[in-house]
Amino acid sequence: MPGHFITFEGGEGAGKSTQIRRLKAFLEAHGQTVTVSREPGGSPGAEKIRDMLLSGGAKDLGPRGEAMLFAAARADHVDNTINPALERGEWVLCDRYADSTRVYQGEAGVDPAYLDLLEVAATAGRRPELTILIDVPPEIGLKRVAARSKADGAGGPDRFEDEALAVHENRRRLFLDLAVKEAYRFEVIDGTGDQDAVTSAIETAVRERFSDAFPDASRVSALEEMS
Amino acid sequence: MPGHFITFEGGEGAGKSTQIRRLKAFLEAHGQTVTVSREPGGSPGAEKIRDMLLSGGAKDLGPRGEAMLFAAARADHVDNTINPALERGEWVLCDRYADSTRVYQGEAGVDPAYLDLLEVAATAGRRPELTILIDVPPEIGLKRVAARSKADGAGGPDRFEDEALAVHENRRRLFLDLAVKEAYRFEVIDGTGDQDAVTSAIETAVRERFSDAFPDASRVSALEEMS
Repeated sequence: MPGHFITFEGGEGAGKSTQIRRLKAFLEAHGQTVTVSREPGGSPGAEKIRDMLLSGGAKDLGPRGEAMLFAAARADHVDNTINPALERGEWVLCDRYADSTRVYQGEAGVDPAYLDLLEVAATAGRRPELTILIDVPPEIGLKRVAARSKADGAGGPDRFEDEALAVHENRRRLFLDLAVKEAYRFEVIDGTGDQDAVTSAIETAVRERFSDAFPDASRVSALEEMS
Repeated sequence: MPGHFITFEGGEGAGKSTQIRRLKAFLEAHGQTVTVSREPGGSPGAEKIRDMLLSGGAKDLGPRGEAMLFAAARADHVDNTINPALERGEWVLCDRYADSTRVYQGEAGVDPAYLDLLEVAATAGRRPELTILIDVPPEIGLKRVAARSKADGAGGPDRFEDEALAVHENRRRLFLDLAVKEAYRFEVIDGTGDQDAVTSAIETAVRERFSDAFPDASRVSALEEMS
């Protein structure tokens, strides 16, 4: 596969969208072509399912049905957006992917064996080479979400944002557990600092993980280290 | 599991709905409690997905995503309708179930291994004890559908009815192949005869398969044979 696949994970208000935009600009400045996507959604069919999921239109579904609906969106997203972009040699930056299902549906009590089965079916083997987990304590993340909603004049939080603090804390722990278990592809970034510090940490992680794509950058940093 | 689970399969215009209504009446006349259901759908969440699937609202989805959407509806249907009814000791008669996915999505070219995976996930091990396949050549079934639409003053056929004859023939063959492969649970009924003959054949199959539930009926037919 000629392209590269990076996913961004984290709780509400971690700052994923901002950092994805910045990483896109960074990669483009290095001559790369970038596709930005998100889950649930990311392809026309999957976006329809996203509407159903986030609006609460799927709330009649039990947790198994809902998890399967996320998987349906993911299968479509992989087939129609992620894989085609990777085949064209692009970088794909995705706001949430399979780890979010493990964490959100896992926290909601869905059987992990069932989630594993769905993940195999939905991803058809497409796994990220690098997963950036932007870690932020929920109190901070939720304050950011509240401020954003106010600034946007937007409605309220969506159904996943509007939940008890303990739920958000559980998810944070589950994300961190995953990052330990699959350390080979995870990079945990402290998201409490200012945005420039987070951006810089992400760029360093990306340059290290994909050093072949940044020969100049690597040389510069090597020179800097020597001086 | 105290109840019994019977599924009805077959192409368009096979007469499933009529026969399900009649079998329900037959079972109730024998003191049984019956839940009639259908797929896709059969539970509030699954019915929403059904609307999306049959209206063509899911046509943006690729075949893998669509198959997964059927599976999402099925998972919900199993959890919220089929299993609760069986646990209450009822008979569940279901118009289409997992075999329809194998046949319709299989015919559409979805990888059978993927469909198997989804079936395991969606059904959570809930398999019918008896599957009545009402077999009708597509020319006959489609004529019935056309006559029904006209009589109803209904719109047109839904998207699964409105397809080339060769597709319907392929599906018929796939249903019959399944019935051979899983003969232990299949009963193939010739659906070209008049409705009473079909009803009678189905009642015989049900009495044989669940003889414990029909002690009187069995005795009567034994007496008839002796006379």
